[in-house]
Amino acid sequence: MKLGFLGLGQMGVGMASNLIKAGHDVTVYNRSPGKAAALCEQGATEAKTIADACHGEAVFTMVADDKALRALAFGDSGIIATLPKKAIHISSSTISVALSEELTEVHAKAGQRFISAPVFGRPDAAAAAKLAVVAAGPAETLAACAPLFDAIGHRTFILGDTPPIANLVKLSGNFLIASVIETLGEAMALVGKAGVDLHAYLDMLTSTLFAAPVYKTYGNLIANGVFEPAGFAAPLGQKDIRLALAAAEHLNVPMPVASLLRDRFLTLLANGGENLDWSAVGKLAARDSGQQSPVTD
Amino acid sequence: MKLGFLGLGQMGVGMASNLIKAGHDVTVYNRSPGKAAALCEQGATEAKTIADACHGEAVFTMVADDKALRALAFGDSGIIATLPKKAIHISSSTISVALSEELTEVHAKAGQRFISAPVFGRPDAAAAAKLAVVAAGPAETLAACAPLFDAIGHRTFILGDTPPIANLVKLSGNFLIASVIETLGEAMALVGKAGVDLHAYLDMLTSTLFAAPVYKTYGNLIANGVFEPAGFAAPLGQKDIRLALAAAEHLNVPMPVASLLRDRFLTLLANGGENLDWSAVGKLAARDSGQQSPVTD
Amino acid sequence: MKLGFLGLGQMGVGMASNLIKAGHDVTVYNRSPGKAAALCEQGATEAKTIADACHGEAVFTMVADDKALRALAFGDSGIIATLPKKAIHISSSTISVALSEELTEVHAKAGQRFISAPVFGRPDAAAAAKLAVVAAGPAETLAACAPLFDAIGHRTFILGDTPPIANLVKLSGNFLIASVIETLGEAMALVGKAGVDLHAYLDMLTSTLFAAPVYKTYGNLIANGVFEPAGFAAPLGQKDIRLALAAAEHLNVPMPVASLLRDRFLTLLANGGENLDWSAVGKLAARDSGQQSPVTD
Amino acid sequence: MKLGFLGLGQMGVGMASNLIKAGHDVTVYNRSPGKAAALCEQGATEAKTIADACHGEAVFTMVADDKALRALAFGDSGIIATLPKKAIHISSSTISVALSEELTEVHAKAGQRFISAPVFGRPDAAAAAKLAVVAAGPAETLAACAPLFDAIGHRTFILGDTPPIANLVKLSGNFLIASVIETLGEAMALVGKAGVDLHAYLDMLTSTLFAAPVYKTYGNLIANGVFEPAGFAAPLGQKDIRLALAAAEHLNVPMPVASLLRDRFLTLLANGGENLDWSAVGKLAARDSGQQSPVTD
Repeated sequence: MKLGFLGLGQMGVGMASNLIKAGHDVTVYNRSPGKAAALCEQGATEAKTIADACHGEAVFTMVADDKALRALAFGDSGIIATLPKKAIHISSSTISVALSEELTEVHAKAGQRFISAPVFGRPDAAAAAKLAVVAAGPAETLAACAPLFDAIGHRTFILGDTPPIANLVKLSGNFLIASVIETLGEAMALVGKAGVDLHAYLDMLTSTLFAAPVYKTYGNLIANGVFEPAGFAAPLGQKDIRLALAAAEHLNVPMPVASLLRDRFLTLLANGGENLDWSAVGKLAARDSGQQSPVTD
Repeated sequence: MKLGFLGLGQMGVGMASNLIKAGHDVTVYNRSPGKAAALCEQGATEAKTIADACHGEAVFTMVADDKALRALAFGDSGIIATLPKKAIHISSSTISVALSEELTEVHAKAGQRFISAPVFGRPDAAAAAKLAVVAAGPAETLAACAPLFDAIGHRTFILGDTPPIANLVKLSGNFLIASVIETLGEAMALVGKAGVDLHAYLDMLTSTLFAAPVYKTYGNLIANGVFEPAGFAAPLGQKDIRLALAAAEHLNVPMPVASLLRDRFLTLLANGGENLDWSAVGKLAARDSGQQSPVTD
Repeated sequence: MKLGFLGLGQMGVGMASNLIKAGHDVTVYNRSPGKAAALCEQGATEAKTIADACHGEAVFTMVADDKALRALAFGDSGIIATLPKKAIHISSSTISVALSEELTEVHAKAGQRFISAPVFGRPDAAAAAKLAVVAAGPAETLAACAPLFDAIGHRTFILGDTPPIANLVKLSGNFLIASVIETLGEAMALVGKAGVDLHAYLDMLTSTLFAAPVYKTYGNLIANGVFEPAGFAAPLGQKDIRLALAAAEHLNVPMPVASLLRDRFLTLLANGGENLDWSAVGKLAARDSGQQSPVTD
Repeated sequence: MKLGFLGLGQMGVGMASNLIKAGHDVTVYNRSPGKAAALCEQGATEAKTIADACHGEAVFTMVADDKALRALAFGDSGIIATLPKKAIHISSSTISVALSEELTEVHAKAGQRFISAPVFGRPDAAAAAKLAVVAAGPAETLAACAPLFDAIGHRTFILGDTPPIANLVKLSGNFLIASVIETLGEAMALVGKAGVDLHAYLDMLTSTLFAAPVYKTYGNLIANGVFEPAGFAAPLGQKDIRLALAAAEHLNVPMPVASLLRDRFLTLLANGGENLDWSAVGKLAARDSGQQSPVTD
């Protein structure tokens, strides 16, 4: 397929590379220059403008937030103005449900097709084509995108026939990860204050009921108490909890643990944690109990 | 070894049976009669009194709560009064840290040895000798118990040299399980109200970051919305959260998610949920959002 | 002074009437017609358009929310486009801090003056000129407005020299009122379940430490359990908590009780409470404890 | 009447003094010596033992907690063992509902009468006979005590016919006071971070809807940020919230703000606040938002 790929951050580079390897004809674009070189060596074409990346059958977007996606999608030379009719916009960014609803509507009016397909996985998983793709949209469009999802991930989950559903599911997933950080943080504050070795404790948990990647990854970060450099920075975590709460508010769904996480992230940001990994939230229970703080007060 | 085993509930029967299979000489006791027959066929001796089960090198206790253990341990014909000097009391019940501290002290005064060794796993794991044993106490005593732990579990975790540490860790583990129930419940209330199929959602979670037994087991219970018969009843969950909070209070460790869980369990119990599985807590977010309630109002 | 007054709801009518009584020349406007008649009998002039009410030295706005104020302020024939240079826009609505910041900026660019002056008090206080006016803005402008504030209220509180401060203070005040509703609701759920008469209990509280209007007013509503007709509807309460949380988020101030109130309001709205008075939130603790619910489930 | 008065702390001294002034024949007792001298000058008799204070028609107890009251009430030479049949034990301490239930039962078995009559007010109100007395018990016994309550307070509130009700109401009142501290603390963290003068803010609140003693007293303490010396120490506040939560748990009443207060008090105690006034809890929101902390970290 002839594709565009917009957004060449750590995640986007890996995804675009795997699309090229799968034999697709990929034109890449990034707002700030200098990100396309390695991909061009693999066979990509670099677009000078957004419009130049919008000539194919489909275009991926993979950017940081609503604002960045709006900058690509709207405007006289944006995706909506330049993508051919019937072509597909595949949005993989973690964005608000509201923006996804807006894009669903405006693409339909423009005669284009729109799919939400956010992913779970960190940059190494993106590079290894081991992302989990969470997709939602019309069945026919999803079927057309299936080979693309196979190229970037190891499994695709279809969760609804309207694109915003996939964004909601992605946000709920990040809420669950943040919940693991908080609750592990509370448990470790408790047993740690009683003198238990945190790594031995974590080994016990992850050898038994909690044998999941999320407990291993974040448990180690909390036990080590080292939150720099940030794999996923605290302000991004705060943003995702905010978007989850906004979606929940729209649906009148109270989520008390999400509310608590909101307060935790604000506490972290108010106390010098803006450059820390979001797992630093898992040290706030220790701080409140008079033990090690994630920030130097 | 010549052993006593007190407390023949669903968990205790499986544990005692595996000790017999491992070649130990086991005398069993249960407060209410009629639980020993099957074990006697396997080679156990039935004790008529607590004291009759306290003639060996070690005695296990596996009962429901502090009150039941106090009834076995204290009094003129209890464990402390009748166990030989140097013999070991291995406490596997989920009890308060405070009672464990008290037992540590009184056994020491009586010249006996005391070990806390609570277990993670449900009755089927107990029957299959696949429990995870969380043990704490003096190293020499733990070494003496190692073959016993090997007989009942597939792995033993040594977490401290004073017995109450193991009880604290066990309570923290149950807090983490209850946290999974609550946070999955919130996430499912959110995506469920948006129309996502809960089983498909759970399949996505447990195929990726949340590939842990605890998410599978409790996620299915919440998605099905069927909480009877109870595998672990709501009042026991409420008790464990209460004990975790009591231990945390003693150490001045604030645990906001544990506090929230406390309120959730009280809500469940106040609304007719006393016979439901503790995972019914995972349906309260759905109830508060105007969806399915775990109890018929 | 020659004044405009835009927004003739229950609050606005009383305020405009008192400005007329104080001898000011008042031109009134309301989006939907039929609200001006009584005021015209008192001497007001009715404006057909927003611009017609913007010819004087100052213009008051008193509407329901950000959206309604935006509809008045912006656009080709809105306040900003039509108010003379140096004239003052006095905003008394409970709006977001962000909109107040925006208005501060655009009025300055347009050479106009802007003051935020939200009020505490219900319609009867507005009619009786007994509002508490919370004002913020440049000192000179505030001084010019002082006789106007004296006409509508019994006391004016100057809290800052930038208008958004007054909006923040107003939102914080509504947060405190909602907190009284929630905490009285919890206390009454507790003593009520033990059989205490709620009116006797409230009499005790408000005769002693809690002798404040807010406890009397809302305590009676909760004790009576009658929440219709709504004096201040639940969706408006939810909106104010949302705006308080948004302002707090902007400043990185975690407010756990405000977060809890957010969840309470969503629960109320999700369970059929959209037409109830916001004090119905004070019955949710009773509902969770298995007692009377504010909504018929 | 011939009375005993046990417990001569800051509160007890004032109450006993007012009973003497009202013409009663008062024998006073305190566990630690040296507290009775001033009262003896006013006409009191000092008892050397608990029993010596239990010869009259009624005996007051006013001590710090359950443990202190147990030490007076139980044992071979305690109140229950020595008080004449028909004589009345008036318990004014802030104790647990459970202890009050136990005393109700054991006094009944001993043929004695028991009344709970905790008070609202600080030491200055006790000295000035301006306490609010919250009483519960059998009507006839309350009638017999009425002149005594009139001597120590300015108003008596009868809230039930079983003594523990009064203890529950007292605990609920302290919960409401702590809630004012927390919510004022959150509001002040918000407006304070935006630059509002906290005393001007408090003046506005307490001149309007929040014109109650509790807002004035605690608002000033929080605005000043001075929490030593403690009028009511943080560990006592923590105890009262614990007792309120215990009573609520017994009744299956979830109280989310009380749970939050529990965590706040633990945070304060864990960070060096054990000697501060309990209103220091009102500075934790400021601390979490990166502003002034109640303790020097």
